Amino acid sequence: MNFRNLPTPALLVDLDALESNLSRMAAFFRSKPAKLRPHFKNHKVLPLVRKQLEAGAIGMTCATVREAAILVEHNVPSILLANEIMERDKLACLAQWSRRVDIMLAVDSEAGITAAASVAREQGVAPNVVVDVNIGMNRCGVSPGASTVRLVKAAVAAGLRFRGLMGYDGHLQAQAPSPKRDELVRRGSQSLIDSKVLIEKEGIPVEIVSTGGTGTYNVSGDYPGITEIQAGSYLLMDTLYVNRDSPFQPSLSILTTVISKPARDRFVIDCGVKALSSERGLSTVKGIDGLELKALHAEHGLVEAHASQNGLDPGDNIELWVNYSDATVNLHSRMYGVSDGEVKTVFTIEH
Amino acid sequence: MNFRNLPTPALLVDLDALESNLSRMAAFFRSKPAKLRPHFKNHKVLPLVRKQLEAGAIGMTCATVREAAILVEHNVPSILLANEIMERDKLACLAQWSRRVDIMLAVDSEAGITAAASVAREQGVAPNVVVDVNIGMNRCGVSPGASTVRLVKAAVAAGLRFRGLMGYDGHLQAQAPSPKRDELVRRGSQSLIDSKVLIEKEGIPVEIVSTGGTGTYNVSGDYPGITEIQAGSYLLMDTLYVNRDSPFQPSLSILTTVISKPARDRFVIDCGVKALSSERGLSTVKGIDGLELKALHAEHGLVEAHASQNGLDPGDNIELWVNYSDATVNLHSRMYGVSDGEVKTVFTIEH
Repeated sequence: MNFRNLPTPALLVDLDALESNLSRMAAFFRSKPAKLRPHFKNHKVLPLVRKQLEAGAIGMTCATVREAAILVEHNVPSILLANEIMERDKLACLAQWSRRVDIMLAVDSEAGITAAASVAREQGVAPNVVVDVNIGMNRCGVSPGASTVRLVKAAVAAGLRFRGLMGYDGHLQAQAPSPKRDELVRRGSQSLIDSKVLIEKEGIPVEIVSTGGTGTYNVSGDYPGITEIQAGSYLLMDTLYVNRDSPFQPSLSILTTVISKPARDRFVIDCGVKALSSERGLSTVKGIDGLELKALHAEHGLVEAHASQNGLDPGDNIELWVNYSDATVNLHSRMYGVSDGEVKTVFTIEH
Repeated sequence: MNFRNLPTPALLVDLDALESNLSRMAAFFRSKPAKLRPHFKNHKVLPLVRKQLEAGAIGMTCATVREAAILVEHNVPSILLANEIMERDKLACLAQWSRRVDIMLAVDSEAGITAAASVAREQGVAPNVVVDVNIGMNRCGVSPGASTVRLVKAAVAAGLRFRGLMGYDGHLQAQAPSPKRDELVRRGSQSLIDSKVLIEKEGIPVEIVSTGGTGTYNVSGDYPGITEIQAGSYLLMDTLYVNRDSPFQPSLSILTTVISKPARDRFVIDCGVKALSSERGLSTVKGIDGLELKALHAEHGLVEAHASQNGLDPGDNIELWVNYSDATVNLHSRMYGVSDGEVKTVFTIEH
């Protein structure tokens, strides 16, 4: 089936770009001590998890207990829930799953340790934890150094199975590489390593040191002592993260239909914020010069045309790049895999 | 069940505010010639459709063929698809459904009429159409007056069943009422009426003149000749549309859990743009003074606290108002109906 016959708005992935992204990332890690643990939250597609594991990933990262449940159900061997969880029912699920798979949870507070330990006693099984360290993003995470050591000791004392450290440098992911940015990435990695040394001095082994993302994988993935990288966006590669130095190509787009042409230079397409996130900025048009997306309403997109493109008419298609894949994939239940203009596969997006 | 025991992030609707909004809107239309045809796209909940119909709504408005399918399947007697549709397969569905229910489609172009007429010939049944008129929003819609008359005649000549006119003044919905705004609303309504007069001079009856929304229902709903209003947001009433003169109360909120407290004055909650839209601005905190939502990431919300509120800890709940209900409801599969702090009902959101 030609992809232009899909009902619109349709979420498309270019399979050739996807395979290229997959193998470029895998090639980088083949020769490194650090390994890749891709983030499931970005694509939420199980066949893409399989591809990532087959290409050398050591397991998956995820952001929610629901995502962890999907990965557990599909026997992903090792799962890092790179987020803090405080709800008892969710902690109980995680504890039970840890009997079947290697699953780890982030903690960054005494309250988090107390909650996990209390559930562990009830469930008769202690969860695996990594301590989340703030390496500059100022979101979650305990301060590196003495505060981290204190929290690790509290986790061990509470009977949790301490596995290592994570620190996400999300504030650096969308910056173009530069000596200054790379230095900040290395400084973040070093603060994790420094904390690891302090913890090991206390006789507590640190198996995992996880950091990085699609924008910084090659800097922190090459940093001595970092054991894994939690990059997610590289496969679908939204235009938000693309920069001139990125080896990854955007592979995700939205097919839309022109439903109205209220003036020679204006089109309305059947795609608004319910199908395409503009939370991090508006998308650009793919494959046609002279068209500009001006606004997204709930179900409509407003496109302006330069003179050369006003020959488009209602019923014609316009394809848009996805600017923010995380929030856009989340709006769909299917992703159509396209190659040579044909729909080759339909991926189910798990919710 | 106390609503604070729900897994978070959870979409809540205050049933008392909802009932108040329902009956206030119904009371307005009880004594008017114009009737209410609420927009399904806002809540996508069938039990709320039932409530709206029982309170006097003459049918439902919707924005997509998928929404129309849900309404048809559940025997809503009259449906206005207030949007242009160009795809043949979707037009074929609409044509077939028109054998069972009163369903109308918006058209605003010769291309739209040609597509609908061609499908009508194939399917052996002509769809009902309303002509979409631009009354100032500059999105879809043909110009009022001569252009509208021309398009109506083309629709009739093509064998479509012309039912009337619609014009959506979306640009005026979020403005606070003022003499100037109300004058613009009336001018839009009048341009629909002027077009109706011109069409009827051609011997073509105009049964329906549809306009308005939650922000303008009382102005255009009171305008002579307007037959129906397509307000949607009044039931859930996002904070985006609330203003000092609105008789409707916000009823929609998100329950979140604090998962991290990286500093005395900063919290991280388990709710980001995958659960709460910030496409039209950030939400405000419900019920606790001194807390401010500063940013939403994919799965995290960053909250700042004034000194008086830094006693909150990981595991505590923070409730946020929904600023943009359309795009937020779209992110959820369930809406929990709450009254007196208890979950009284669980609404399924149709997708």
